[in-house]
Amino acid sequence: MGPSLPSCLAEIKYLIEQNREEWLKEYYTFLSFPSISSETHFQVSLLNCANWVVDYLKTLGFEVELWPTEQDGPPVIYATHLKAGADKPTLLIYNHYDVQPADPLNEWKTDPFQPSLRDGSVYARGAQDNKGQCFYVLQALKFYLKQYSRLPINIKLCIEGEEEIGSAGLSRLLPTKAEALKADYLAVVDLGLRDSQVPAVTLGIRGILTMDVEVQGSDNDLHSGSHGGIAINPIHALVAMLASLRDASGKITVNGFYDDVEEMSLEERSSVSFYFDLADYQKLTGAYPGGGEKDKTALERAWARPTLEINGINGGYTGKGFKTVIPAKASAKISCRLVSQQDPKKIGRLIEHHLNEAAPQGIQVRITIHQGQGRAIRVSPKSQLVASFSEAFQEVFGVPCEFIFEGASIPIVPELGMACGGEVILIGLGLTTDLIHAPNEHFGLDRLEKGILIIARAIELLAQHPKDKRLEKCSKSLSL
Amino acid sequence: MGPSLPSCLAEIKYLIEQNREEWLKEYYTFLSFPSISSETHFQVSLLNCANWVVDYLKTLGFEVELWPTEQDGPPVIYATHLKAGADKPTLLIYNHYDVQPADPLNEWKTDPFQPSLRDGSVYARGAQDNKGQCFYVLQALKFYLKQYSRLPINIKLCIEGEEEIGSAGLSRLLPTKAEALKADYLAVVDLGLRDSQVPAVTLGIRGILTMDVEVQGSDNDLHSGSHGGIAINPIHALVAMLASLRDASGKITVNGFYDDVEEMSLEERSSVSFYFDLADYQKLTGAYPGGGEKDKTALERAWARPTLEINGINGGYTGKGFKTVIPAKASAKISCRLVSQQDPKKIGRLIEHHLNEAAPQGIQVRITIHQGQGRAIRVSPKSQLVASFSEAFQEVFGVPCEFIFEGASIPIVPELGMACGGEVILIGLGLTTDLIHAPNEHFGLDRLEKGILIIARAIELLAQHPKDKRLEKCSKSLSL
Repeated sequence: MGPSLPSCLAEIKYLIEQNREEWLKEYYTFLSFPSISSETHFQVSLLNCANWVVDYLKTLGFEVELWPTEQDGPPVIYATHLKAGADKPTLLIYNHYDVQPADPLNEWKTDPFQPSLRDGSVYARGAQDNKGQCFYVLQALKFYLKQYSRLPINIKLCIEGEEEIGSAGLSRLLPTKAEALKADYLAVVDLGLRDSQVPAVTLGIRGILTMDVEVQGSDNDLHSGSHGGIAINPIHALVAMLASLRDASGKITVNGFYDDVEEMSLEERSSVSFYFDLADYQKLTGAYPGGGEKDKTALERAWARPTLEINGINGGYTGKGFKTVIPAKASAKISCRLVSQQDPKKIGRLIEHHLNEAAPQGIQVRITIHQGQGRAIRVSPKSQLVASFSEAFQEVFGVPCEFIFEGASIPIVPELGMACGGEVILIGLGLTTDLIHAPNEHFGLDRLEKGILIIARAIELLAQHPKDKRLEKCSKSLSL
Repeated sequence: MGPSLPSCLAEIKYLIEQNREEWLKEYYTFLSFPSISSETHFQVSLLNCANWVVDYLKTLGFEVELWPTEQDGPPVIYATHLKAGADKPTLLIYNHYDVQPADPLNEWKTDPFQPSLRDGSVYARGAQDNKGQCFYVLQALKFYLKQYSRLPINIKLCIEGEEEIGSAGLSRLLPTKAEALKADYLAVVDLGLRDSQVPAVTLGIRGILTMDVEVQGSDNDLHSGSHGGIAINPIHALVAMLASLRDASGKITVNGFYDDVEEMSLEERSSVSFYFDLADYQKLTGAYPGGGEKDKTALERAWARPTLEINGINGGYTGKGFKTVIPAKASAKISCRLVSQQDPKKIGRLIEHHLNEAAPQGIQVRITIHQGQGRAIRVSPKSQLVASFSEAFQEVFGVPCEFIFEGASIPIVPELGMACGGEVILIGLGLTTDLIHAPNEHFGLDRLEKGILIIARAIELLAQHPKDKRLEKCSKSLSL
């Protein structure tokens, strides 16, 4: 640590207090748009929501473009504030304004699109994911500009409206928008903490690959009395095929599955906290941590090892009572979480080959690999970007920042990192208990305020490091 | 064969021709009641249908009772015509007046409850199963009485309204109605033929046992990114547990499963036609006959070997697109077809034990064994009842009657056989192509007319054999 340099934290904190009513109202307005990307009849709400963000940024002095996506999807908001000077770095910040559906509606205590404040938390769909996390970014920029009439570094914002449905629109735009998205740093503000009192920076997320598997044994459903013992039952075939994908030790048995998986380096192991509280986990989830490879610890399995999960299975009669049917078809949905250098396309082919080989005679197999696959990304703990953000986190929380990984995936991040060309950081103030994607999603105002402070302080810290002093490029995955 | 005795066939055939318009109208009326037992709002239709049968039988001179079932289910119609004399045998005939639901309605070419005649077949729900087969019994009795003003043997009818939902009401009534149901013979008229031109008597049906299996891994659904590799996935557990139920040779691996399965006797083997046309089967079903034990022939597997089929499986997200969920629960529906001396209760316990043992740590297993289970029944080809009916079949069809088995189950039959105390026969004129339980169910009038003739001729033949000349009690199962 060098000599203590000026900090914006006291001033920003004062502005948060003084303008509480105003920013809370703006946050509620942002949350009130039902910007549900997975349902086409919310198209107008998505556009209204995007326009609200556009107006907000224009008022701050940003230059704003709406990038239309193919197939009339919600547009990408692209905004720039590039007046810090050519010697100052440029930070690209990623958020999204679309939200998950609110079903089942009857499980919400208050309307998901009429924000409600209870016990210091705001309840609404998107309160955290990702409108809450987007909002503290916007608010940090607003207060910094209000206080200093300038930003300390150059800022670009990329706020998309299709994250919850796979970011296909933004993904297709990237090749033509690479120049606009060029930056020294990319901050993806869609992650979280392990504990509300412990600051954390996420050094890696896993990649993802999803697919449908359908097996068929006959033209139509057959009666299990007359045909039972003769006709081959596709559910039997499916459970045998799926069971063959892993062995008793939890290892995936697909040939070549682990070929491109690297063990974590000693540096990574020593910088990351793998502490896992079994009792806490079971209390929170009710689940026994018996998934994955038995010779690895729980968090290593979730953070640094690939998975193959069956996310859905369906076949035959599944209603009340009984129907003695041998169904014509059965199906399953499979996803893999990928790590290191695993290539989704290659892994998809390996699984397809395994399942086809495992299918018994008389069973037709159809495998559909979905759009929206993505590689893993892993960030070096030594990057300047990580150093600045972890310092900002530490100053705001008052305790040292921990480095963690996240088992989930944001498929657009590796692509966006590639387009940006700079270092990447993954941050956020989410908690598992925020109930994102579920009824009664909420976000603590204490964390929202910390978010404003962290963003403001981080851009101030980044301004103190001239562009040429950055230590190294960050991500292994990006160096591909 | 003894000397040729008088036959009613010519007279009954004449009556069928002369009264075609009248009986066709009655058949249509019977079919027009939507007597769907699985849906409670058809309660009135079921009762109207039962009352129509009651009036029909009273007009013929039957004494009729409606036996109420518990829980306000549709009543059992019990009717007797016992004027043949004490030296003549008593035949109990079983049918049912309830039908399957007609869904999906949009796949019917004509209204399922407005019978329509096309190409010699009547299209309606229940046209075959079982109103068509019930109707030719009623019509045979009517014409016999019309021609001879008497019946040659004593007749009891048991026509229930809950066959399609498991016969729980009749099953509960049996202990108190054993005296009323006592008979020398029981004819279950709810079966079929393998070929429309080849008469057949069914010597056995399999027993049945059904159950729900539910596995649970966590309190709520979990995100497969954050929890994948940590939490145990109940779908993985379920597919492994289910896959462990059979080995590569198609044998069920449940310990003790085959203990009470007897190999077929040489007598049975030599009297039954096991001919199976692979090309025909594949053309009809599109299915490869790879189900069951690989060292047994197709029809032996369907007729004389037990099965364990997964009839339904469900877990996680199964809609369009993808949801990255590790579900809290997953479930399956399993049925077994039982043969020989297999006891449904014992088999249920064995499977429950196997699945509990196969469940990985952290997975809760809940198994629910359903009502409506039943043992197999197998009839001796040497019984007087079989001899009389097969002779009637042969005379009406003009070719020898074959002996077959049926892989499906009618759980009430063994219980009813026990209550009746007499020999059992399983007959009918159904064909696989009649689309029972499916849209566009139909029944050929040629077979309906043959049914009238066969019933009339069979009761005439049974009257020629004094009660004390019957060869042996029929069913192995009933001797338990």
